Amino acid sequence: MFSYSRRLKHFISKTNSVHLHSPYMSKNPTYTKLFEELRRLDKLSAIDGILGWDHQVNLPKNSVDFRAETAAVFSELRHRESTRPEIGEWIAELTEADNLSPDEKVVVAQAKKDYDLSTKLPVDFVKRRAIAESEGYHTWSDAREKNDYGSYAPYIEKHVALCKEMASYMGRENDAYDFLVDQYDPGMDCETIDSLFTPLREELVPIVQQIVNSDVKADTSFLKGFDVEKQQKFLYEVVKALGLDLGTARIDSSIHPFCGGHTCDTRLTTRFDADNPMDSLFSVIHETGHALYQQGLPAEFTGTALGEAAGMAVHESQSRTWENQIARSKGFWEYWEPKYRDLFKEQLKDISSDKFYLAANKVALTTIRTDADEVTYNLHIMLRYELEKRLFSGELTAKDLPEAWNTLFEASFGFKPKDDREGVLQDVHWSEGMFGYFPSYCLGNLLSAQLWYAMQKDLTSVDADFSRGEFKEVLSWMRNHVHANAQRFKTKELCHIATGENFTHKYLIRYLKERYLPLYS
Amino acid sequence: MFSYSRRLKHFISKTNSVHLHSPYMSKNPTYTKLFEELRRLDKLSAIDGILGWDHQVNLPKNSVDFRAETAAVFSELRHRESTRPEIGEWIAELTEADNLSPDEKVVVAQAKKDYDLSTKLPVDFVKRRAIAESEGYHTWSDAREKNDYGSYAPYIEKHVALCKEMASYMGRENDAYDFLVDQYDPGMDCETIDSLFTPLREELVPIVQQIVNSDVKADTSFLKGFDVEKQQKFLYEVVKALGLDLGTARIDSSIHPFCGGHTCDTRLTTRFDADNPMDSLFSVIHETGHALYQQGLPAEFTGTALGEAAGMAVHESQSRTWENQIARSKGFWEYWEPKYRDLFKEQLKDISSDKFYLAANKVALTTIRTDADEVTYNLHIMLRYELEKRLFSGELTAKDLPEAWNTLFEASFGFKPKDDREGVLQDVHWSEGMFGYFPSYCLGNLLSAQLWYAMQKDLTSVDADFSRGEFKEVLSWMRNHVHANAQRFKTKELCHIATGENFTHKYLIRYLKERYLPLYS
Repeated sequence: MFSYSRRLKHFISKTNSVHLHSPYMSKNPTYTKLFEELRRLDKLSAIDGILGWDHQVNLPKNSVDFRAETAAVFSELRHRESTRPEIGEWIAELTEADNLSPDEKVVVAQAKKDYDLSTKLPVDFVKRRAIAESEGYHTWSDAREKNDYGSYAPYIEKHVALCKEMASYMGRENDAYDFLVDQYDPGMDCETIDSLFTPLREELVPIVQQIVNSDVKADTSFLKGFDVEKQQKFLYEVVKALGLDLGTARIDSSIHPFCGGHTCDTRLTTRFDADNPMDSLFSVIHETGHALYQQGLPAEFTGTALGEAAGMAVHESQSRTWENQIARSKGFWEYWEPKYRDLFKEQLKDISSDKFYLAANKVALTTIRTDADEVTYNLHIMLRYELEKRLFSGELTAKDLPEAWNTLFEASFGFKPKDDREGVLQDVHWSEGMFGYFPSYCLGNLLSAQLWYAMQKDLTSVDADFSRGEFKEVLSWMRNHVHANAQRFKTKELCHIATGENFTHKYLIRYLKERYLPLYS
Repeated sequence: MFSYSRRLKHFISKTNSVHLHSPYMSKNPTYTKLFEELRRLDKLSAIDGILGWDHQVNLPKNSVDFRAETAAVFSELRHRESTRPEIGEWIAELTEADNLSPDEKVVVAQAKKDYDLSTKLPVDFVKRRAIAESEGYHTWSDAREKNDYGSYAPYIEKHVALCKEMASYMGRENDAYDFLVDQYDPGMDCETIDSLFTPLREELVPIVQQIVNSDVKADTSFLKGFDVEKQQKFLYEVVKALGLDLGTARIDSSIHPFCGGHTCDTRLTTRFDADNPMDSLFSVIHETGHALYQQGLPAEFTGTALGEAAGMAVHESQSRTWENQIARSKGFWEYWEPKYRDLFKEQLKDISSDKFYLAANKVALTTIRTDADEVTYNLHIMLRYELEKRLFSGELTAKDLPEAWNTLFEASFGFKPKDDREGVLQDVHWSEGMFGYFPSYCLGNLLSAQLWYAMQKDLTSVDADFSRGEFKEVLSWMRNHVHANAQRFKTKELCHIATGENFTHKYLIRYLKERYLPLYS
């Protein structure tokens, strides 16, 4: 039946506009117009979210090219809608207005930033970049397969040039890399990042050495043959306990776990491997962290600065807190280990709790970032950040990148990758021109640890709660201190407001010492 | 990873336009512009197809209102895009042009029909209708639950009035019902339908009587406890053999089976019930018929009359041919029955082939259209058609509808529905103002039978092919005679072109006699 009514709609009812939400009323009528328009554009962004999810989760394999064409048409349309001159006029008027509330000023400022970015990039540039993104991606995936960096190097050059060109349209040609970083983490720049990463590296390397040189070795060889349906059952129990609202979210599987969709319709994924159950579990908890943030943003303001995430580092701080500080804690497993053992009696019958817990907190040096544990992960990020800075300063060219990679890698890890596949070719990001993004992962780890200790000051019984399978307090603390603020503050300010202190590397170091040194000595 | 690159796109790359398809070049540059625009709008319609599918298959239960708002915003945007004055100017110019190929003329004519419909309906009317559709639907579903026709009656009146109002905007106030019928089946009208339905009813009723009064009764009591996973396995084997290309299609489950998506990305669904395996099997074959048609339309012309379906009746003729003429044939089951028995040894061990085949071809009088077999189904449709005509002629008002329903029902079926739930309240269509659509179901049955016998003239070994699990010949016959014609011809013309004869009721009668009378005597 449904198909017919759908076909009917296609034949007749081409428009069908019911406005279910009551409009927000401001003292300033132009603000109300802008607000309503941002809310309308947010619906288009939600469609983009569903299409992106569908692409990864459902798309039939031979429908990929058609979807690419469809996505191109839709993003062109979204661009046209979000750059209508009217919007620019409203923003210009509101930037001068004196009757806006502080929140309204935040919305206008962010709208201006987005509008400027969308309008100042020439269409011809945007097309060249889009083509370079898709060509770069395909060249990279061939190059990685064939371990042939040479064929891929020109795209590194091209994307660096395109990023600089983009910065120049925004009047930032002199600090292009800072400009890029700011796109992911508002207000962030190299000076700040260096002030965090330099001491972090100094204090982290010896901790890593101490752990990897310890006689204690995590044994994960018993994590084999874990029935996938039972893994799923367990995972749903866990994410519900963590507070994920499955009334407005769903979990599917995809090659790369991710969290997409929209605050009001969240789509997260994981992947399942009978011989790697910890990967799917911690992946889904990581994505649940992103989803809890998304679901914690004020739904009535999505599409505006009062309803969107503060940036990548803050987003990552949420996924990391749930994945690491919480789900790798003793308290967490005191509650969940018995349930896990019930499901996997056979596999775990000869495994002590200590051995099990150590396996969940395995630390090992690896060449591949995405396989890295939370301790060594930061070394991988800082390496990429260092190389990006040099590429943008001109100190380094694409052709010398592999050697620079291997030298820096050896300096942090004590050995060289066996080939470029395990080195410079491993990540997709640069192939699509994503420079300035890597730092967010490590900034997210720093912030998650800082939030964690700030939380302890307010919540005395966190560990005890976890051991009873209780996470409400933690979630509501995050809701109040992070989620509710949406995009109101830049990363550093948000950190200070939520934790009462300046953004620092100290808490990550403290956390890693307290969590891992007892385990590995 | 993906999530980050998605968030990145959200932060930076708001536009990303790559044109992967090479543009069609016409002698007439304005035609090329129109063609490209129709192809662009087709991508938006494809997005609508994915959203509609997602709504039925994936949408979290509390995300429904948000999706409704999103859909409203998107359909308003699509309406705006498809009614841009430029398009109207191109169409006007091309309607006068003398250098268009016959195919190009077809495209322009259909584009004009769609454009006029979209532009001649006042926005205020479209909003009133949209509200009446959604209120009508909700009132109907409550009314059906409570068997309270009275609360629903006003919406019948309202939708009849809205349909007449719509017709008047198109200058069709004097034949509003014909206008509606034409929306679903181009060129169709009451005069033609009456010339088909009147003799059909006369000849069908005695056949039905003969079957239901026969001592032979189909026993379906053994169709219980059929493992759903095995049902799925079988169903995939079948649809692949029928020719469904799963490289550009997928099958999921939903409450109402349907076929949606797009020619290049087809999404069909069925439902699974361990105690009703024939329902899910024939449902998926029915939807596969729709999908084979969709996949048979020329992909390089979707969005234009050279790449879209000819109408509802033709669409239904495709689903019906595969569901009934083919999948209920002896030849079909000669090949598939042994495979079915392999999967369901226990359930079928005491069931003879004759008993099994009879169960697959059960005929019984029922009050509910959607439960009806292919013989009695047509009586249900003709009843609704008769009532719709009277509602639009003014002969009948909403308040007298239940009584008229029951009287007509008794005349065809020999008994009255026990309440309105089993009568006038059973269908969703009228609650959303879908008048003029019901005839398509029966017209589709007529056409499927006529195509079936035309096919036999060209293909001598159809039954033998089926008994070897071969369907290529049938599919390629349909591709050549029906699918390839897309929207070039009106329903009646297409029928004549494909079968060499005028559209008639005779072949459905012949088919039902040949298929069912031997079984039930």
